[in-house]
Amino acid sequence: MITNDDGVNAKGLRSLVDVVRDLGDIVVMAPAQNSSGKAHSFTASRPIHVEALSKYEGLDIYACDGTPVDCVKVCEQYYCPRRPSLVLSGINHGSNSSINIVYSGTMAAVLEASMSGLQAIGFSLLDHSPNADFTPTLPFIRKIIVSALEKGLPQSTSLNVNFPVPDDGVIKGMRVCRQSEARWVDSYERQFDSKGNACYCIAGRFECDDNKEGTDQWALENGYVSIVPTTIDFTAYNIIEEIKNVFE
Amino acid sequence: MITNDDGVNAKGLRSLVDVVRDLGDIVVMAPAQNSSGKAHSFTASRPIHVEALSKYEGLDIYACDGTPVDCVKVCEQYYCPRRPSLVLSGINHGSNSSINIVYSGTMAAVLEASMSGLQAIGFSLLDHSPNADFTPTLPFIRKIIVSALEKGLPQSTSLNVNFPVPDDGVIKGMRVCRQSEARWVDSYERQFDSKGNACYCIAGRFECDDNKEGTDQWALENGYVSIVPTTIDFTAYNIIEEIKNVFE
Repeated sequence: MITNDDGVNAKGLRSLVDVVRDLGDIVVMAPAQNSSGKAHSFTASRPIHVEALSKYEGLDIYACDGTPVDCVKVCEQYYCPRRPSLVLSGINHGSNSSINIVYSGTMAAVLEASMSGLQAIGFSLLDHSPNADFTPTLPFIRKIIVSALEKGLPQSTSLNVNFPVPDDGVIKGMRVCRQSEARWVDSYERQFDSKGNACYCIAGRFECDDNKEGTDQWALENGYVSIVPTTIDFTAYNIIEEIKNVFE
Repeated sequence: MITNDDGVNAKGLRSLVDVVRDLGDIVVMAPAQNSSGKAHSFTASRPIHVEALSKYEGLDIYACDGTPVDCVKVCEQYYCPRRPSLVLSGINHGSNSSINIVYSGTMAAVLEASMSGLQAIGFSLLDHSPNADFTPTLPFIRKIIVSALEKGLPQSTSLNVNFPVPDDGVIKGMRVCRQSEARWVDSYERQFDSKGNACYCIAGRFECDDNKEGTDQWALENGYVSIVPTTIDFTAYNIIEEIKNVFE
């Protein structure tokens, strides 16, 4: 099963389909519209509709008017003839490294699949442009997917894979990393609408000092693919004992 | 700073405001509409507007037409005269325990605040009804907040606090827990619209077998408040070394 958050017509999705097309039976269900920044939201306020497309001959491609999480759930429940061996999401146009995973529809789809016990991998390129060049990423994506299909991923683990855009165009290799700490600052810009009322538009800049070797930030800054194994367990285990003394 | 995802007029929000009103200066900014299930999404497609309300005399209460995450960011950036000592979210009408944290706007607000380096706590009651009785939760909430203000929370840690609704109405105490593993199954129901087209409506049932002592599920099933310390680091640390052999 393949999905994304940039929408069913995004170049990144089509690139991902092409790179795995000969590896097995493929079902694609992706949002009809761009759903970047939708995070793990789902559609509760209205019914979801699914439209079968036929632009890629021989492939089952569906456009869903819900979120990436909706796509994974509806596709798994109603459009997969059997349980998928692997769920892929992307290739995202833009970074989902570091804390960007929190906002990401691409990675929400991955985490949702993982919660259903499915193996899942998200791919993102550090280039937002609609016409981004995914060519240098494709051999790495192929290698990661073949390896996941052959060897499997550990239970309840999914992968957040990000690709750099090095100045010289050469990706040096792959690094398994932890997620860097970071933050978005000055996230909204105050403007005034035509009636003179204040309003707030998304803006902001990404600040990350946590770029030691071993982090995804380090890998990407140094020309490597970053692979972060991810979990949906939000527990901060290291402080459970400490705060037991406070609250119990 | 206080926010929620059920909307600025929710009973749970007003209950939370009441319980901390005498503890310091309070700014409330919450979604104008119910934003349950919005998870960590933010508003990128249009400007956000904020309306000052004056229903609670003497308090600064604002309705924001964005998501809970938008509320935290805009409020911190433009509506707080100084850096908040504490960000509170809730009291949510319904559970955010176990994996429900992933979908939760209430907890997204908490995690967003935490990413900005703010201390943050989310409160949820296992009762969805708009007129839920929050009375039994209030002494516990007061105790948790006073403790957090006096002793502080560890850096980058926030709390996911859930309250049971015991049959006998008696909450036994508080337990610091880890997040239970669980899943939602049969999440969407296939229906047919007036034109005979298939559509999919949110449904599903929550399945959780991971209710050993030490989990939030155990605490809530046994009449205790569950307190899960939470982090926005999604890294599955325990398998980094294992998959290095595969991918590097």
